[in-house]
Amino acid sequence: MPRYDFASDNTAPAAPEAMAALVEANQGFASGYGTDTVTARAADLVRALLDVEAEVRFVASGTAANALSVAALARPFEAVLAHEHAHICTDETGAPGFFGQGVGLIRLPGASGRIEPAALEAALAQADVSYRQPAAALSLTNATEYGTVYSTQALQRLIAPVKARGYGVHLDGARVANAAAAGFDLKQIAGLGVDLFVLGGAKAGMPPTEALVILDAALARRIDARLKQAGQLPSKGRFYAAPFIGMLEDGAILRHAAHANAMAQKLAAAMPFRVVHPVEANAVFVEMDDPTLARLHAAGWFVYRFLDGSVRFVCSWATREEAVEELVETLRQFCA
Amino acid sequence: MPRYDFASDNTAPAAPEAMAALVEANQGFASGYGTDTVTARAADLVRALLDVEAEVRFVASGTAANALSVAALARPFEAVLAHEHAHICTDETGAPGFFGQGVGLIRLPGASGRIEPAALEAALAQADVSYRQPAAALSLTNATEYGTVYSTQALQRLIAPVKARGYGVHLDGARVANAAAAGFDLKQIAGLGVDLFVLGGAKAGMPPTEALVILDAALARRIDARLKQAGQLPSKGRFYAAPFIGMLEDGAILRHAAHANAMAQKLAAAMPFRVVHPVEANAVFVEMDDPTLARLHAAGWFVYRFLDGSVRFVCSWATREEAVEELVETLRQFCA
Amino acid sequence: MPRYDFASDNTAPAAPEAMAALVEANQGFASGYGTDTVTARAADLVRALLDVEAEVRFVASGTAANALSVAALARPFEAVLAHEHAHICTDETGAPGFFGQGVGLIRLPGASGRIEPAALEAALAQADVSYRQPAAALSLTNATEYGTVYSTQALQRLIAPVKARGYGVHLDGARVANAAAAGFDLKQIAGLGVDLFVLGGAKAGMPPTEALVILDAALARRIDARLKQAGQLPSKGRFYAAPFIGMLEDGAILRHAAHANAMAQKLAAAMPFRVVHPVEANAVFVEMDDPTLARLHAAGWFVYRFLDGSVRFVCSWATREEAVEELVETLRQFCA
Amino acid sequence: MPRYDFASDNTAPAAPEAMAALVEANQGFASGYGTDTVTARAADLVRALLDVEAEVRFVASGTAANALSVAALARPFEAVLAHEHAHICTDETGAPGFFGQGVGLIRLPGASGRIEPAALEAALAQADVSYRQPAAALSLTNATEYGTVYSTQALQRLIAPVKARGYGVHLDGARVANAAAAGFDLKQIAGLGVDLFVLGGAKAGMPPTEALVILDAALARRIDARLKQAGQLPSKGRFYAAPFIGMLEDGAILRHAAHANAMAQKLAAAMPFRVVHPVEANAVFVEMDDPTLARLHAAGWFVYRFLDGSVRFVCSWATREEAVEELVETLRQFCA
Repeated sequence: MPRYDFASDNTAPAAPEAMAALVEANQGFASGYGTDTVTARAADLVRALLDVEAEVRFVASGTAANALSVAALARPFEAVLAHEHAHICTDETGAPGFFGQGVGLIRLPGASGRIEPAALEAALAQADVSYRQPAAALSLTNATEYGTVYSTQALQRLIAPVKARGYGVHLDGARVANAAAAGFDLKQIAGLGVDLFVLGGAKAGMPPTEALVILDAALARRIDARLKQAGQLPSKGRFYAAPFIGMLEDGAILRHAAHANAMAQKLAAAMPFRVVHPVEANAVFVEMDDPTLARLHAAGWFVYRFLDGSVRFVCSWATREEAVEELVETLRQFCA
Repeated sequence: MPRYDFASDNTAPAAPEAMAALVEANQGFASGYGTDTVTARAADLVRALLDVEAEVRFVASGTAANALSVAALARPFEAVLAHEHAHICTDETGAPGFFGQGVGLIRLPGASGRIEPAALEAALAQADVSYRQPAAALSLTNATEYGTVYSTQALQRLIAPVKARGYGVHLDGARVANAAAAGFDLKQIAGLGVDLFVLGGAKAGMPPTEALVILDAALARRIDARLKQAGQLPSKGRFYAAPFIGMLEDGAILRHAAHANAMAQKLAAAMPFRVVHPVEANAVFVEMDDPTLARLHAAGWFVYRFLDGSVRFVCSWATREEAVEELVETLRQFCA
Repeated sequence: MPRYDFASDNTAPAAPEAMAALVEANQGFASGYGTDTVTARAADLVRALLDVEAEVRFVASGTAANALSVAALARPFEAVLAHEHAHICTDETGAPGFFGQGVGLIRLPGASGRIEPAALEAALAQADVSYRQPAAALSLTNATEYGTVYSTQALQRLIAPVKARGYGVHLDGARVANAAAAGFDLKQIAGLGVDLFVLGGAKAGMPPTEALVILDAALARRIDARLKQAGQLPSKGRFYAAPFIGMLEDGAILRHAAHANAMAQKLAAAMPFRVVHPVEANAVFVEMDDPTLARLHAAGWFVYRFLDGSVRFVCSWATREEAVEELVETLRQFCA
Repeated sequence: MPRYDFASDNTAPAAPEAMAALVEANQGFASGYGTDTVTARAADLVRALLDVEAEVRFVASGTAANALSVAALARPFEAVLAHEHAHICTDETGAPGFFGQGVGLIRLPGASGRIEPAALEAALAQADVSYRQPAAALSLTNATEYGTVYSTQALQRLIAPVKARGYGVHLDGARVANAAAAGFDLKQIAGLGVDLFVLGGAKAGMPPTEALVILDAALARRIDARLKQAGQLPSKGRFYAAPFIGMLEDGAILRHAAHANAMAQKLAAAMPFRVVHPVEANAVFVEMDDPTLARLHAAGWFVYRFLDGSVRFVCSWATREEAVEELVETLRQFCA
């Protein structure tokens, strides 16, 4: 049996707190389409976590949540600025263009998944011309695709020139719990000027669910019709809301994220290959040639080579210390 | 507390068999995006249920599954034929047009949710002209929106002229378990010429999940990219597949559907208002004026008035006999 | 040779004033994409005709101009209110849904192509629910599809409740010249609250061109990118602008429309079949059975049966009195 | 007055042959939507030029013709391979994504606008994975954006591996007349395996019009509905067809293209700046720094800096020898 422990954080099972809440919520009849009391309670917990007044919706898909956010912030003849290796640019099969009817992506460079401010400013400075899709919004990811974490200050620096032009901001928080466990203050998100925030559930250890937090009240108008049309307004809403109750009401989400981060630190510390990005969240990227990666796969450990050429190892709430040790043991043999 | 027992079949909790399988599947690491062993096992069970060789995918949303089916069978400048009160026409916020970039719907009449064959034939006989979206496919629903069930023969009569033109066929099976419990043979679906079939999970008593069965092999090409782009290829696929294991491996899905149908019969038999559609599956539609409906709502029972003007009561796997009796008791008071 | 004199007003050649301006504009080099001096002059003339400050663009297609207007006023999960027989509903192959990614159309009844105010108000009063596309804008047509003309007061009555909700208004003016010749005051359009106005060129006697007048300044932002992406920002803009110069600078557009209207009056007066709609602009609709229509076609006169079952005869700037007389002569033979 | 002689080939007026045919066609009534005799005659001439049996349609916009071609060959979750500086990638405001609902573009490198075969093959060799839009078609441009011309052999080399996979081929022929005048044999296009070919009118010296040639008969099914929905089925079709009659019936299109090419050769020969791409068609690209370009603009000559950093000068049917000499004179002063 191949092992997927480090392939991604979505290969892990759901955490017990999330599952318990799911089972607990599965009682009696409930009104549909997110109008139930479980959903209301989960939304309250999300608002408390972020210290915001905002509409919150629970949806099935992070890809859809991101793509709908992009489509809400930019029209088809406009574009969204994003890191060139952001999930919306490279891992979502062009979903922003599908949900946004051809909305463009302006791909920005930057070391270790963080957008280079100068590149952002250069893109913003581009003249509006009819034959090119002009920027209308910025999409950020924290923690980034390369396991690094933006500080509040770093985000401010990126967001300020965007807001100065009246453009919108989307924050993909698929791994924001890992960022938070690494010190990123979730209560700063609203103040930063984020308009649409996707608070990740699946990668944080929940069954499939993501919370879409609509910080710009104008974007909440008719949001249920928007979601329903896109197949993201679940009839049995409590199944997407309940896991957030289990994970938020006693802080399990941060506890589990801290564990994942710690496992990544442990792996990085023992890693016999060169680590190529700062290990700030729950992933370790290393330099590894193809024959070695093939040997690792042959040894039963499945991991991905990434767009920057490095090989990624991801830890999760479910990563056991023993698994890290076993993996390191295997990797060490390749270096002998 | 308002009672949603009869508001819809998606207000019910998930059945124990589905939940047990979900909990059972939540063990260890699993590969993502539907490549796991739980998903493989569930797909086998779906194929066995239908006696087909076909690709099967488990998705979060019936709205999306239907809309993607429509988009796969008709291009933006074409249209899909459907009953004028079909879910895709009236309850999905224009999702077919969103997923299919403006694909048209040709709305056909027919008593009690069943398409009138003559109306279908008249629509098919319309000349192709450049200024109108011509038919390219037929969308059917069984059981129908009005709780009636098409026989195999009735479906054949509708499908034959469609297939004769080389057009595609979609079957929305949100309540196909209820149709099956009423005698519709699921093993006939492939032979009927259905190309895309949505085997409903949520209304059959599962947590949110629907099985998309791709009976026309040509439509399976790149289906994962199609689903991923549309936010319907879940990373944690086992959560959408496992409930089908629980419900299919010992026939629970049909047992529960038979219970729901029986509860509808019981309700219809005791119903003090005029029943306006044949009760063949799990719903009872009655003639009821606005003041009476308001009194029913005031008494705590939430139900919907439908497009045909009648009021709908839906039963599910979870409907208790006592609830039927309580409801009837209440209704009787309004007639006294 | 079949005769298309009365088939539509787009079967006519372009008027000499328009052609002369086109030939005149075809001199020397000109900057592209509507930045040339011919385009600037034509836009000035359109603004003067309407007595407005507004951005004006010249595009190739009325279908596209209407569909882009709808897409600018309503998002995919919203809908536009329109007469059920409006061109956007019945004659544009679902273009609004294509350009607007599934944007809905709420089809309203009303005698002789004019929306019934009570029907509009009922539609506006519909509750916002997640499963239905709610109204976001009103689309009007003047002259209507049935050759009638809205008065300013009639339009006010329809627009007022729409504006009261903050919704947008589109006016399809494919035959607005005929309406103007019948007394509709073009200078009232801005004051009525119209946001996007399509001033028809083709049916008014020009080569293919339509003027898109953007009365709501907010909608003009990035309009060139919007048009370019949709294939409606012509590189050789002067070819679409010049005909408007020829037709507007000495009032030819109204003179020709008055002639078309007069020919329709002449035809209606002599018409041996029952005229079924008021003849207020340039079309005559009559009651005619299929065998008679077939005889008319066999006699070489091509005309269309319309959605209301009547047969339409359209006059244009190019309709000759003799042609009306010939047609009437032929029709009289069928009644003998 | 700024001079646009060399800014593009769409700044030129229409050639006398095209205008004469337009004026000639503007007689009497004609049936609409491309069913008229002028359109039939023009289509015959296009078929003769290419020596093909194929459906031909005349449309207003090259951007739309290209984007509709892409949308016909690739579904939203697929992608089209194209040169990274192809017009569809850089100059059409994301039109392929708009018309194709998010269809992807895989941007390929290659010197002087010609796709590097190895890069194409590498892209084709990419594994199909669910999270990335896989290639479904190849889009070519001849003459290229950098004024070079593919030979038949060079196109064969690119097309062969694409066809071997069953993928489609689009050829953007905005400047194919220039390619033909440079030796490219138009009668080879069908044999090369091109499925959709856009035969450029505007840049070849016509009023706005492009011929869409549908070489794959399967793609012609319901093409009029496709075009109508997209705003590209003109009601007054003869205005888009007639210019092709004027330009094709005595070979004017090639005569004018040869003149444009000769003017580019003359300009290149006398050019005091380094020419950076082979001059094979009607454009000259040179190395020029910003201050010099600013002086050129100040001297009244408008030209564009291109994506590769060079400055482009385009010749057309209307370029006069004296204009070339005046321009060269001006440029020489900057080098003194």
